[in-house]
Amino acid sequence: MKAIVALSGGMDSTTVLAKMINLGYSVECYAFTYGSKHNQYENIAAQKVAAYYDVPIHGAIDLSQITKWLQSNLLKSGEAIPEGHYNSESMRKTVVPGRNLMFISILAGIAESQGAACVSLGIHQGDHHIYPDCRKEFYLAAKRTVYLSSDGRIKLSAPFLGTDKTGIIKWGLAHQVPYHLTRTCYKDQELSCGKCGSCRERLEAFEINQIEDLIKYD
Amino acid sequence: MKAIVALSGGMDSTTVLAKMINLGYSVECYAFTYGSKHNQYENIAAQKVAAYYDVPIHGAIDLSQITKWLQSNLLKSGEAIPEGHYNSESMRKTVVPGRNLMFISILAGIAESQGAACVSLGIHQGDHHIYPDCRKEFYLAAKRTVYLSSDGRIKLSAPFLGTDKTGIIKWGLAHQVPYHLTRTCYKDQELSCGKCGSCRERLEAFEINQIEDLIKYD
Repeated sequence: MKAIVALSGGMDSTTVLAKMINLGYSVECYAFTYGSKHNQYENIAAQKVAAYYDVPIHGAIDLSQITKWLQSNLLKSGEAIPEGHYNSESMRKTVVPGRNLMFISILAGIAESQGAACVSLGIHQGDHHIYPDCRKEFYLAAKRTVYLSSDGRIKLSAPFLGTDKTGIIKWGLAHQVPYHLTRTCYKDQELSCGKCGSCRERLEAFEINQIEDLIKYD
Repeated sequence: MKAIVALSGGMDSTTVLAKMINLGYSVECYAFTYGSKHNQYENIAAQKVAAYYDVPIHGAIDLSQITKWLQSNLLKSGEAIPEGHYNSESMRKTVVPGRNLMFISILAGIAESQGAACVSLGIHQGDHHIYPDCRKEFYLAAKRTVYLSSDGRIKLSAPFLGTDKTGIIKWGLAHQVPYHLTRTCYKDQELSCGKCGSCRERLEAFEINQIEDLIKYD
């Protein structure tokens, strides 16, 4: 059975890719360009991860003509990426309105046309406070919507829905997921900053797992 | 309050535009290019309709790089448009997988960023047999998903959800909706064919309303 994975090149989607391969699916990945500050670095990471697992990666699907109407500090058109803890109020400015639902809907249509059984996402238990489109109730509603939209053909899957970042990395480390190839930092710079909420959450998760993060920091 | 209307240039979305203006909303329209055979004629009609109502129209948002992965006879990449009644099995080949959910998710993200209250759609009681993404249960699931995705900021509206094509036109004719500017035919030709399911449904609706359809047919 074929699974479509939305591969951003970050740790979550990379672990989802590993998980779906581990479950026996034939996986195809899709990447997006949507105008975020770190998008080019994410897409390079996604290419490396797909090459590591020897799976096809399509795109990056370019949504930049849509995102010109969107407002978020995560986007190049927005203000600076805030620093601080991931759950702090300032990080709310990095929400991109509707982003996950756009990715889901596009991939669900592609999955149905390409004869895939499911679209797999990196949504997890960690970041629901800030991001409405990462919460469990959103995921379940989207799953039902995609099921109905496709006349029951396409299922959303989120294998780490009930797991936090630390747990995801724990599973990944036990399954040789190449986190040294992934990109987490939100900033528009090649080296990860280590200070934005996204970097801090990553570093915390490695620390709790008592493993060294092998990527380079600024 | 601002409403975003997905304006295809067809009769349904044109009537939705009229309805939302009638309800007192400040309306902005968005059009899409998604590679259907009749897309260029639809978009010309959408521009004329928006000009008639003196409302802004944005786009057409170009999804053609996504639709290259989609399979449907409605698309230029697909086989010929079948002729016959709209509810016949052959018309099922004109379903574009995931199309409505893509349009909804993109417009919901834009609506949230642009401070609109709702995204209004032409989904109605008529064509649910063929199109899963036009059925009431799909619409209600999508409405809940968009509500959750936007933290309660964006509502989907489908003012003709409980009305069939004949009823929509009845409302429209009573409110001077310029159906002579709209485009319905699915075929890749300037003049409407009068034979495809979409044309036949249109003609039936005018006949039942005992009004002449003023567009030219092949």
